[in-house]
Amino acid sequence: MTNKAENKELGFGTKTSTQKKRLINKNGSFNINRIEISRWSSLSVYHALVKMSWRKFNFFVFLYFVIINLFFASLYYLTGTEGLKGIEATTESDKFLEAFFFSTQTFSTVGFGRISPFGHISSTIAAIESIVGLLGFALATGLLYGRFSRPIARILFSKNAIIAPFKEGKAFQFRLANKIRNSQITDMSCSVTLAKFENEKGTLIRRFIPLDLEIKNIIFFPMTWTVNHIIDENSPLFGMTENELKDAEVEFMISLNGFDDTFSQTVTSRHSFTHEELVYGAKWISVFSQNENGQTSQDLNKISEFEKVSF
Amino acid sequence: MTNKAENKELGFGTKTSTQKKRLINKNGSFNINRIEISRWSSLSVYHALVKMSWRKFNFFVFLYFVIINLFFASLYYLTGTEGLKGIEATTESDKFLEAFFFSTQTFSTVGFGRISPFGHISSTIAAIESIVGLLGFALATGLLYGRFSRPIARILFSKNAIIAPFKEGKAFQFRLANKIRNSQITDMSCSVTLAKFENEKGTLIRRFIPLDLEIKNIIFFPMTWTVNHIIDENSPLFGMTENELKDAEVEFMISLNGFDDTFSQTVTSRHSFTHEELVYGAKWISVFSQNENGQTSQDLNKISEFEKVSF
Amino acid sequence: MTNKAENKELGFGTKTSTQKKRLINKNGSFNINRIEISRWSSLSVYHALVKMSWRKFNFFVFLYFVIINLFFASLYYLTGTEGLKGIEATTESDKFLEAFFFSTQTFSTVGFGRISPFGHISSTIAAIESIVGLLGFALATGLLYGRFSRPIARILFSKNAIIAPFKEGKAFQFRLANKIRNSQITDMSCSVTLAKFENEKGTLIRRFIPLDLEIKNIIFFPMTWTVNHIIDENSPLFGMTENELKDAEVEFMISLNGFDDTFSQTVTSRHSFTHEELVYGAKWISVFSQNENGQTSQDLNKISEFEKVSF
Amino acid sequence: MTNKAENKELGFGTKTSTQKKRLINKNGSFNINRIEISRWSSLSVYHALVKMSWRKFNFFVFLYFVIINLFFASLYYLTGTEGLKGIEATTESDKFLEAFFFSTQTFSTVGFGRISPFGHISSTIAAIESIVGLLGFALATGLLYGRFSRPIARILFSKNAIIAPFKEGKAFQFRLANKIRNSQITDMSCSVTLAKFENEKGTLIRRFIPLDLEIKNIIFFPMTWTVNHIIDENSPLFGMTENELKDAEVEFMISLNGFDDTFSQTVTSRHSFTHEELVYGAKWISVFSQNENGQTSQDLNKISEFEKVSF
Repeated sequence: MTNKAENKELGFGTKTSTQKKRLINKNGSFNINRIEISRWSSLSVYHALVKMSWRKFNFFVFLYFVIINLFFASLYYLTGTEGLKGIEATTESDKFLEAFFFSTQTFSTVGFGRISPFGHISSTIAAIESIVGLLGFALATGLLYGRFSRPIARILFSKNAIIAPFKEGKAFQFRLANKIRNSQITDMSCSVTLAKFENEKGTLIRRFIPLDLEIKNIIFFPMTWTVNHIIDENSPLFGMTENELKDAEVEFMISLNGFDDTFSQTVTSRHSFTHEELVYGAKWISVFSQNENGQTSQDLNKISEFEKVSF
Repeated sequence: MTNKAENKELGFGTKTSTQKKRLINKNGSFNINRIEISRWSSLSVYHALVKMSWRKFNFFVFLYFVIINLFFASLYYLTGTEGLKGIEATTESDKFLEAFFFSTQTFSTVGFGRISPFGHISSTIAAIESIVGLLGFALATGLLYGRFSRPIARILFSKNAIIAPFKEGKAFQFRLANKIRNSQITDMSCSVTLAKFENEKGTLIRRFIPLDLEIKNIIFFPMTWTVNHIIDENSPLFGMTENELKDAEVEFMISLNGFDDTFSQTVTSRHSFTHEELVYGAKWISVFSQNENGQTSQDLNKISEFEKVSF
Repeated sequence: MTNKAENKELGFGTKTSTQKKRLINKNGSFNINRIEISRWSSLSVYHALVKMSWRKFNFFVFLYFVIINLFFASLYYLTGTEGLKGIEATTESDKFLEAFFFSTQTFSTVGFGRISPFGHISSTIAAIESIVGLLGFALATGLLYGRFSRPIARILFSKNAIIAPFKEGKAFQFRLANKIRNSQITDMSCSVTLAKFENEKGTLIRRFIPLDLEIKNIIFFPMTWTVNHIIDENSPLFGMTENELKDAEVEFMISLNGFDDTFSQTVTSRHSFTHEELVYGAKWISVFSQNENGQTSQDLNKISEFEKVSF
Repeated sequence: MTNKAENKELGFGTKTSTQKKRLINKNGSFNINRIEISRWSSLSVYHALVKMSWRKFNFFVFLYFVIINLFFASLYYLTGTEGLKGIEATTESDKFLEAFFFSTQTFSTVGFGRISPFGHISSTIAAIESIVGLLGFALATGLLYGRFSRPIARILFSKNAIIAPFKEGKAFQFRLANKIRNSQITDMSCSVTLAKFENEKGTLIRRFIPLDLEIKNIIFFPMTWTVNHIIDENSPLFGMTENELKDAEVEFMISLNGFDDTFSQTVTSRHSFTHEELVYGAKWISVFSQNENGQTSQDLNKISEFEKVSF
């Protein structure tokens, strides 16, 4: 997947041109409302189960385990607990509980055998439950693998983007780094699109303009990358003052992709900086230092640090 | 995978030029008959098991479970039920049933133990059955994961394509959207090929002509996309009347691909619009609205809605 | 993955230039001898287990199952069968057999319980065996999934390539089709490289020359594809007679790749035609026919059929 | 993923320009120090578990198994061993051990049943343990599959790079081969970047300069590949003597990628040669030989062998 921003439309169309809110949320999702045709057909269960938090996922697994065992316990109970040899309970509630525990032992295929199905009905239910359990567990295996192996480019972005002095003029800059230390990303590419409001015959229109980057492709990504757009006469930011940037409610939309060389998968990331996250007149504080052995060291805690400068 | 339609042949060759039926079915499959060399060698069992409906898949799993257990139950029964310690049945049919339930408990590795193999023969059969069960279950795990993680670009297409007024002239248009709300597709590209019949020296010949699109690549795909082919003098549709389009039995063949950013996989989709699904003289009704907070909202229920216009 | 043969070397180097045998075998493997640094380090066990035949794979699984259970049975037997409660055997060989069957029940996690570990030593062995069994089964699951989901472009090639009359001149042609009826390949590309011997100052040198194809990319691949290299003045085959082709011991090396749209994976295929598989003066018999409903049908049994023609 | 080194920055930036140590380690990792924001958030557990050695991985699995069973054994013991029917131990330590073994049988779902949970508390604990065991095993399955199917291009590099005589002048060369005999890599591409120190107004600056390769793409990779950079007037190495190369502390950074045609995955590899691994004035000893049947054979043991020559 190549990312040649220059030949491509952004995909936000012209109808969003009057939306005053940011278009890309901080977590990379799109800030666009949708009215679905159907609540269910628009939901991919697998995507949902793979993307939800571990806490939520574990809760759903546990809930499923309890519900399915309540269901089978009811079947055993209703078809008669005399079908479960070894039950020693005397009260009805205890009998149901024993049926429930027997069900968990069947579903998980532990099968201790103190209680065992006896007779055709309970044996049939137990056979069905064990196959349901096996398939449910097969699903869980697939989901856990899907959750774990899902490629995420955990990119660390600077909190702000800045307008920095650059050579004779100015530049738009932000910094990013690979958050994960034990996995390399190679062949990184970055594209930045500017969204700004323009007054066209009295109407506010949001325009999307790709920004040229000094470097938009790097082979290796072991270092903090300062993405740099030079504000020259070809730049849509050329000549804009701090107030004009605020008035135009600029939003810088960022699309990243690279290649995770552990899993040989393309990983992508989205981000945006709004005018509120833009610092006009600043320069970055270096993340690098060099120790006595002549080895360079980078401190990721400093990735968002800058100092104010005036033009 | 890039999709540069202009440099590529469509792949339908010239021999299909006289086929009167549509070439691409509504579900994206090809409407081409094949006479196979062999019914079996042309079938990929994995593709079949992964693509079939859940109803069918579950039925096959259940059927497999019953058949394999009938097979092993027969083995236990034929080698003598005295090899199964704990059997309490007295009639032959009950003995077979107990052997069957014992088999299910072995195959699923539940192993309650009320009945257990006793003696070399039944122990050997049980050992083999348990390994067969484990491998069968391993297969099911793989298949379930394959079914779940199979990347599907569930694209919502407008029911019709239209010939719409566009600037001074006309344009061929259809709309599409990402059907799934909880998974983003990025880097979408679209190519459209026109198939039309032409009278060449008295013979009807079907020609395949790629159509230029105003935009054929978008970086993000959060919005409904109106794919637009401007009918100018370079277009093979230029100057064709409604009746000429019907007579030429035009079919618009669409190939889409994008990048599912949850699974980092390329997803593809195929579609076609025949002349019967083409509305001559129409314009789309907007799917967008804006609420009081200034946020844009799109209603996917309206994706197929248009109003008739006359040229 | 793009496949621009024109900018790339073939990778056979110049040292193979005197090899008289074919360079690519019929099954797509390379006919190049290697002397390995080490028999073991050059073997990827996973690749081997995934690529071997099902017969061989099942045999290895069964063998592993028997050997590991013989190992654990020996441990139980040597540490004393009094550690296995429930053993009823009286002879030593029967005791070992019971230990073996107990081991299989532990390894497969069936655990009937007629025999159960009693005492610290056999309990510890059983605990270790069950975890080994689980991990072994986990491995089998992964391998089975890897075997099943491995993308194979099962391409059906014509048995021969031909030199056919084409317009005013000649062309080199072969045919291919997607062997699998229930999985589509899209975005197919093909490159052909000619290997021929040339007499250079008295020495036979094998040259590798890419051949231009009339069509080298197709979007859809539902039909039989006749790959066509026109023998014009730019072709290295131009003016060569049948005997000259034989003397030059030509080999046509074919590299294919496409996109399996069920699994969203690139699939590749290699093939070659030697001068012995080249028919000089032939034309293909059509695989297509049209039924009364106007639908085109292709008969894959005819893919290798040609009729001789003379120039 | 294409690798067009000429259009891309290397990604080491300018801040590493004074680092005296090598930038890429022998194993392909980067020799760059990082100060993490947080020790834990910068670690991807999955990447760690997939990349660690088998010895380490097995140790962690075993450790996890022991710890989790100690935990559940403690629960059974603390809630009263009268909840475990079948325990025959009389001392407290033996009771705990029996609880531990019962726990392993529950966790692995073997469930012999000699000891079985009796009463609500121990039954509940056992139900929870069996589901934890199943999920833990599901995780192990996913990890084992991830470890096995992880695409590794095991590339064999020559120990040294050399400056060799080439035609009228010189060339920089190294050799590489596919280490794995049972998996083919196709579509290999290679890029080499030179890092050298230059004296700029009294300061040592490290410059990164891409080197042109005679061949940088090969379709098939069955043979040893001698990567060749011709040192002509366009080369940054042009006119440099052996001592100048040492003084400039040159490092040749290599990025490789190809396509594993067993798994249809892109595989990558990184390597570097420092000035200490560069031999000035040498030529390679051929790895090829030809047997009496006219088949070429390559001996990978010779891949690093060269003979000294003087210019």
